[in-house]
Amino acid sequence: MLAVTIPEPGGLEALVLAEVDDPTPAAGEVLIDVVAAGVNRADLLQRQGFYDPPPGSSPYPGLEVSGRISALGQDVQDWSIGDEVCALLVGGGYAQKVAVPATQVLPVPTGVSLLEAAALPEVVCTVWSNVFMTANLFPGETLLVHGGGSGIGTMAIQLAREIGARVAVTAGSQAKLDACRELGADILINYREQDFVEELKKATDGAGADVILDVIGAKYLERNLKAVATNGRIVVIGLQGGVKAEINLNRLLTKRAALIATSLRSRPDQEKAAIVAAVREHVWPLIEAGKVRPIVHTSLPLAQVGDAHQILDESSHIGKVLLTI
Amino acid sequence: MLAVTIPEPGGLEALVLAEVDDPTPAAGEVLIDVVAAGVNRADLLQRQGFYDPPPGSSPYPGLEVSGRISALGQDVQDWSIGDEVCALLVGGGYAQKVAVPATQVLPVPTGVSLLEAAALPEVVCTVWSNVFMTANLFPGETLLVHGGGSGIGTMAIQLAREIGARVAVTAGSQAKLDACRELGADILINYREQDFVEELKKATDGAGADVILDVIGAKYLERNLKAVATNGRIVVIGLQGGVKAEINLNRLLTKRAALIATSLRSRPDQEKAAIVAAVREHVWPLIEAGKVRPIVHTSLPLAQVGDAHQILDESSHIGKVLLTI
Repeated sequence: MLAVTIPEPGGLEALVLAEVDDPTPAAGEVLIDVVAAGVNRADLLQRQGFYDPPPGSSPYPGLEVSGRISALGQDVQDWSIGDEVCALLVGGGYAQKVAVPATQVLPVPTGVSLLEAAALPEVVCTVWSNVFMTANLFPGETLLVHGGGSGIGTMAIQLAREIGARVAVTAGSQAKLDACRELGADILINYREQDFVEELKKATDGAGADVILDVIGAKYLERNLKAVATNGRIVVIGLQGGVKAEINLNRLLTKRAALIATSLRSRPDQEKAAIVAAVREHVWPLIEAGKVRPIVHTSLPLAQVGDAHQILDESSHIGKVLLTI
Repeated sequence: MLAVTIPEPGGLEALVLAEVDDPTPAAGEVLIDVVAAGVNRADLLQRQGFYDPPPGSSPYPGLEVSGRISALGQDVQDWSIGDEVCALLVGGGYAQKVAVPATQVLPVPTGVSLLEAAALPEVVCTVWSNVFMTANLFPGETLLVHGGGSGIGTMAIQLAREIGARVAVTAGSQAKLDACRELGADILINYREQDFVEELKKATDGAGADVILDVIGAKYLERNLKAVATNGRIVVIGLQGGVKAEINLNRLLTKRAALIATSLRSRPDQEKAAIVAAVREHVWPLIEAGKVRPIVHTSLPLAQVGDAHQILDESSHIGKVLLTI
């Protein structure tokens, strides 16, 4: 089969389309003939050599796909050959075929195209597990999402709005903020021109955000601690702004707040299965009812994978970038 | 009435027994004729001027008492004059009388003396709210308690043991470690002679602690991050080792761990009521069954309040120090 390989980590040129061996589904896995793959920031880190796949997993990038099931491993009961599905992967999505545990597979929701379904698994599982399962965002609370225009951001806005939370976003352009408003965000902060701590306090009578979903890390830590509300939860899921920072524990203690950092890829299969099951129960009905939808910026053929990475590198997109196989 | 006042913050001499006005119970409060008051490290900070009582609360120290109800404010239904009780306070316990919201009052458990009951409210509410309600310690998990010989420590060991968790403690003397072992701790670390990160890893096959209850703060942060297990929760409830530290967010993210800091006194009455109700439901039966007991190091008359503070200053005690009124 064809797959995007990374013979040597580096820039866009590190991504090499090559003929490789087909994967075979192990017990409990299904094989998917890939129709589309989502591009995630983690793939860029993997390309650069900063985010190696866990031992034993596919060496090719790609954390989510949509496609059709073409083979079943032993002991797989819930899926049939030909099923149209999307799936959360530990890697290997930039390819014609990928093997994945059956517990990480979801049906294509009614009303969503097979292509667009590739935009769902990673962002929905990331947002649901972090904002709802870990940080327990409640109706009436305020969620601050850094990078409201990203794939994660556009999904976090919609899901938080649906459960009745108020949504604040930061983004780097008016076009992104406009898109965020259309999706349901009502506190819009241009981080290039405004201080998010101050803007958030103004908009919440000084209370701050009950939950902050952060992809920046060190660079934002102090400001996130200022922006979080009493009993608030800061969930760090990316470290684009570095890993080491000074923390004032008294600030955390005075607010009785929690600082949590997580990643989805490193979780054991059993935890991923629980997240996928929760997503199917809680989020899939919202998508099938047309209340929440995948936001796709563009889709490009697999051979243009470098262009796809460049779009994410430049951060000019709104929503997801997909590769079609 | 007589109360311990703090005319000027400072050393032991700052504690002045004086005649002051009696408190009167507001609506929803009861008045307690105090029999005994627990001494907490927070009282020492208040004496030194580092931990002022919240606006509107009693200016006298003392976060917990036992005694008899002597008057009822308006709208109090659940208590009667003469009831023997103990109570969680926002202050004012070092006195002959104290007024407290009825929702922060607990009956003296069967099998516990009225005097010893003063050793329960603060430690039980602190341990239950942090280790169980916030950090969700599960049966089979490992809890690391820093300062296993303290009032908090001796209660945390017992409660964690009762729910079927494994307990590790740090303490500064063999006598304290022996006491911890008797209460149910089975990983005993002398922090003066051993590295708790290394000892904990040895004892848990490298896994570390699922929950860490910490009173040290900045000085232990890096080591706590090394000692905590994947999916672990560090709960900081004291800052004896400073407030500012460097944090490596990648370490937190790799472990998918949470750093939470809380304090009990600053919580609104409604949250305290929920904690007290949970304690009455979950912990009181364990005490009445004789499975968990207050550990009292010594009790001294109110006039010897300076000696009581000195015992905590020197950290030679095991369990609680009480003042009798």
